[in-house]
Amino acid sequence: MQFYLDGFRGGDPDIKNASPRRRDMSEHAPLPEKVDVLIAGTGPAGLCLAAQLSQFPEIETMIVERDPRNINKGKADGINIRTMEMFQAFGIAETIKRESYWVNQTSFWMPDPKKPENIKRIGRVQDVADDSSEMPHILINQARLHQLFLNVMANSPARLAPDYSWSVKDVQIDTSIDDYPVTVTLEDTGVDWGQTRKVRAKYVVGCDGARSNVRRAIGGKLNGDTAHQAWGVMDILANTDFPDVRQKCLITSAREGNILILPREGGYLFRMYVELEKLREDERVAERGFDEADMIAAANRIMNPYTVDVKEVVWWSIYEIGHRITDRFDDVPESEAVTRTPRVFTAGDACHTHSPKAGQGMNVSMQDAFNLGWKLAHVLQGRCSPSLLHSYSAERWVEAKRLVETDHAWARIMSAPPGQSELDDGDEPRFVRAFKENLEFTGGLAVKYDQSKLIGAPTHQALAAGQVIGKRFHSAPVVRVSDAKQMQLGHVALADGRWRIFAFAGRDHEPIYQLAEWMEQNENSPVMKNIRPEECADALIDLRVVFQETFDQLTYEEMPSQLKPKKGKLGLQDHEKVFCVDHKGQGDIYEMRAINRVDGCTIIVRPDQYVANVLPLADWDSLARFFEEIYG
Amino acid sequence: MQFYLDGFRGGDPDIKNASPRRRDMSEHAPLPEKVDVLIAGTGPAGLCLAAQLSQFPEIETMIVERDPRNINKGKADGINIRTMEMFQAFGIAETIKRESYWVNQTSFWMPDPKKPENIKRIGRVQDVADDSSEMPHILINQARLHQLFLNVMANSPARLAPDYSWSVKDVQIDTSIDDYPVTVTLEDTGVDWGQTRKVRAKYVVGCDGARSNVRRAIGGKLNGDTAHQAWGVMDILANTDFPDVRQKCLITSAREGNILILPREGGYLFRMYVELEKLREDERVAERGFDEADMIAAANRIMNPYTVDVKEVVWWSIYEIGHRITDRFDDVPESEAVTRTPRVFTAGDACHTHSPKAGQGMNVSMQDAFNLGWKLAHVLQGRCSPSLLHSYSAERWVEAKRLVETDHAWARIMSAPPGQSELDDGDEPRFVRAFKENLEFTGGLAVKYDQSKLIGAPTHQALAAGQVIGKRFHSAPVVRVSDAKQMQLGHVALADGRWRIFAFAGRDHEPIYQLAEWMEQNENSPVMKNIRPEECADALIDLRVVFQETFDQLTYEEMPSQLKPKKGKLGLQDHEKVFCVDHKGQGDIYEMRAINRVDGCTIIVRPDQYVANVLPLADWDSLARFFEEIYG
Repeated sequence: MQFYLDGFRGGDPDIKNASPRRRDMSEHAPLPEKVDVLIAGTGPAGLCLAAQLSQFPEIETMIVERDPRNINKGKADGINIRTMEMFQAFGIAETIKRESYWVNQTSFWMPDPKKPENIKRIGRVQDVADDSSEMPHILINQARLHQLFLNVMANSPARLAPDYSWSVKDVQIDTSIDDYPVTVTLEDTGVDWGQTRKVRAKYVVGCDGARSNVRRAIGGKLNGDTAHQAWGVMDILANTDFPDVRQKCLITSAREGNILILPREGGYLFRMYVELEKLREDERVAERGFDEADMIAAANRIMNPYTVDVKEVVWWSIYEIGHRITDRFDDVPESEAVTRTPRVFTAGDACHTHSPKAGQGMNVSMQDAFNLGWKLAHVLQGRCSPSLLHSYSAERWVEAKRLVETDHAWARIMSAPPGQSELDDGDEPRFVRAFKENLEFTGGLAVKYDQSKLIGAPTHQALAAGQVIGKRFHSAPVVRVSDAKQMQLGHVALADGRWRIFAFAGRDHEPIYQLAEWMEQNENSPVMKNIRPEECADALIDLRVVFQETFDQLTYEEMPSQLKPKKGKLGLQDHEKVFCVDHKGQGDIYEMRAINRVDGCTIIVRPDQYVANVLPLADWDSLARFFEEIYG
Repeated sequence: MQFYLDGFRGGDPDIKNASPRRRDMSEHAPLPEKVDVLIAGTGPAGLCLAAQLSQFPEIETMIVERDPRNINKGKADGINIRTMEMFQAFGIAETIKRESYWVNQTSFWMPDPKKPENIKRIGRVQDVADDSSEMPHILINQARLHQLFLNVMANSPARLAPDYSWSVKDVQIDTSIDDYPVTVTLEDTGVDWGQTRKVRAKYVVGCDGARSNVRRAIGGKLNGDTAHQAWGVMDILANTDFPDVRQKCLITSAREGNILILPREGGYLFRMYVELEKLREDERVAERGFDEADMIAAANRIMNPYTVDVKEVVWWSIYEIGHRITDRFDDVPESEAVTRTPRVFTAGDACHTHSPKAGQGMNVSMQDAFNLGWKLAHVLQGRCSPSLLHSYSAERWVEAKRLVETDHAWARIMSAPPGQSELDDGDEPRFVRAFKENLEFTGGLAVKYDQSKLIGAPTHQALAAGQVIGKRFHSAPVVRVSDAKQMQLGHVALADGRWRIFAFAGRDHEPIYQLAEWMEQNENSPVMKNIRPEECADALIDLRVVFQETFDQLTYEEMPSQLKPKKGKLGLQDHEKVFCVDHKGQGDIYEMRAINRVDGCTIIVRPDQYVANVLPLADWDSLARFFEEIYG
């Protein structure tokens, strides 16, 4: 963590200095008449976006929620490794790691071939493959996750907090004006129930769930199927003789259906997804009157010979599996994409819904928001053309579509009764194989954005084969040269809307020094072209360099001043720009990520942590051109 | 972290449920007339003790401070690895690790033999030796550390907060009564300045610094010398061409004196200790009128050819080195030790003072408090005789004495001008050698309590040669069997006043199962003898077992129910009692700590994390006797 740049200030360093022009959020203060961004809904997508935008004090964000307060329990609980990497950038990963359940092993149970009425463990799989991420796959109460985002917002310069008890009733876009063209009708769901208020916004983002009014207002519809399969979910405190109750388990019984066990935070709580009976084609879940007693009974039947003695049902719900998606995630039909730019977006369940059992819905929702956040910020800051915003729906729709399809296939496998072949000890059962094949996907690591203005062609991919253009930047261990601290290189990326350029030195150091000098001094460099007089040189593009030696083989004093840039009000040297290879057995980043040792390379990483391009160190033209296409 | 034992409750799990009988701490609420423990002073010792006692809702603790609020900056800044291990038990280590500067390397600079007016790096030493602790040596603003302890107190069942603007003026002990025998006169240092109030207490702990009124009241005097050497200290934001400014540095110039550089949290701030001129025998520091400008000038002379361009002096102070200690840390002279037990204690600077440059003072102060805390708690809970309290002064005085002596020697070495031999490149200079030799000591790991009721004879030490009886329990990597989580075994020890028994299995598992059964069921076991009807079985003694297999070689279902004890209101199974050897290359705890693989052993660890005894697994008698001597 870096702080005190503009002088010492005591206290919690996560609390940023408040912006003097922030909105008055005290009780009975009026709602604003105009905001830059209005977000509907305080689920994971809405809160993630609000947390991101709150980092920019010049952007006024409003986030409304129909409920009177944060939820307390229930809903989703799985955070995949990709989302944990994002949380690291928001500064909340350590807290979550400390409080949450870590999914280390997934255990598979099937009917015992010798006694099919009993289940039997058929195998275990390490849930996070070695070196797929430095982060664990975790499970935690969604309400707690909300709270951590709320803390990030509260600690931000904007001191942002939700406006609770307001629901978005309608959204109107006046395409003829450019200034606050969106009018949002808010409905009071609190003490003045039913009263409405209008707020004008430059942009509106609907994170208001599967029944999104924002989606409806822009003519979006969720298309897809429901599987006509009722599942129950319950969070319980219970005792059992089932030995793997503290591991994630997929349990298939011979005749009684399936269970998914997800241990949870705190060491005692766990979640069970229990398959209930198939629905008829025309039947809705609510009509069947299933309740938690049915679930507990089903669990005991499925888990035979083990029993579950439930002491407290913390939360339960019954639902049908649905996999649905809208045609687009913004208000601009393809036919109008050249003539106007988006003003209204949807994210999360408002535009795509999933089975909860692959643990993807909440993760993808937050990744939607993380994709959109920096783009909105840069447009509102006037750094780039609003046409950048087309890329949100373009990038995220493809991913959501892929997700819905994979999720659909997985849900079918999960719900299928075990075939005879699966009971055979010799072969790996189909659902274990499918589970393993899906690990990259369920970890959130399969996302790969297509080539675009924001994602370069793979011309020079071979210079860093382990950092795939279009996929997320894959962190690895390094040592910070100035203080010899072992750390993860990826952890220098904060959720601050900045691009990172990681320049990996080849055998020779000179090209790195020249790149650094060009970046800082040449008027055509993306740094010089985009920086504003009041800003630090790294305000938009943060250059970090990595050497292939170990720290004791390097002489920090010989590094040029551009690698110790002077920043902030006091013009203080930043000593956290230079890294090298770990000297204590944590692994060599060059080897781990297949970086070309002879020539090195430049890796451009987007503010949302995706690899935008890999270039030769000396290819300044391509570097300049890449940013020019986005920022002009 | 374990939580939800008595049922689900949302929110921050660090916030414990409030005790219904906690003191009313609202504004203008009266001071209590009687308390169990009154602590004078909110420095590191006082806050550590208060944080510890606040975990016991049945104990009423009051902590007073003459200042009106927590400090903001300045004072000490070094946290050694031993203290970090203790912070782990208080749940604040992760936060501190994230925010603080990590001392990875210490760098040594001396006059360049070829050009003695210039300094030159002569070497570096890895500051925390491999496997000396899983914790880093860190530097952080003392005020922030105070705040983290205040948070622990605020989140405790007692919701404890200091009574600011009250200073302890006098302490009177009435040895003729047993009920609240100590009367404390408090003086208002706030709005009603000078007014006094009396509070009666069962125990009083003076953590009120070198000029302690509590020490004075019990007739204690700090004895020792001052070195007549003025040192300046300043926390600064500054630029420099000195390359090691982000490493801890010991710098000796040929003629201008010495400097110690300590980089600090946030990446920009650093501390400098600057040697100023020698004082005359009869001279006091204040008379010389040194100020921060003198320090900056001296720093620039000493660090020649490098320069320091100071942008902001955050804090500075000038002091003399003093190494002093009182004769005893409680109110009972040795001659009366058999007839009465202590009622008043001193801790930290109130009973021993040090040079700040070995970074020990604050650490030892907190370790004083951690030693005393659980003893006070168990006496106040009525678990054991007040005679236990004699052990505080006995154990801590010896350590403080050793510290004062080592620190004294080190300060002399630090202040000595470099001899000609030290300029020779061939030999390791004396102060580098001394620094290395002192690493175990400065890390806080050299503390070894003498044999006593609380520390067993080393009869069976050979069963676990790497867990030295009398020294702190040395953590190592393990895997929790129920959920295959990789973790540090030492991290199961919380600051909750509980003893831990780590039972390491030999080749055969049976002795472990028998021990667990005996502990839970036999009326002579220390668990059964000491447990109260309303308590969980592990309320005083927490049994954890370790197997030498890896998790996938063990069958958790075969472990007896005693290793999955049912606890709390709901009688929920605790699945965090069984551990095994790490399977992913983090090291084998049996090998790392020289545990006997054939026979295994039992290691008794005190609530303050010190190894009290090592016993054969089957030696139940000795185990029973050990606890009997303390708890009867």
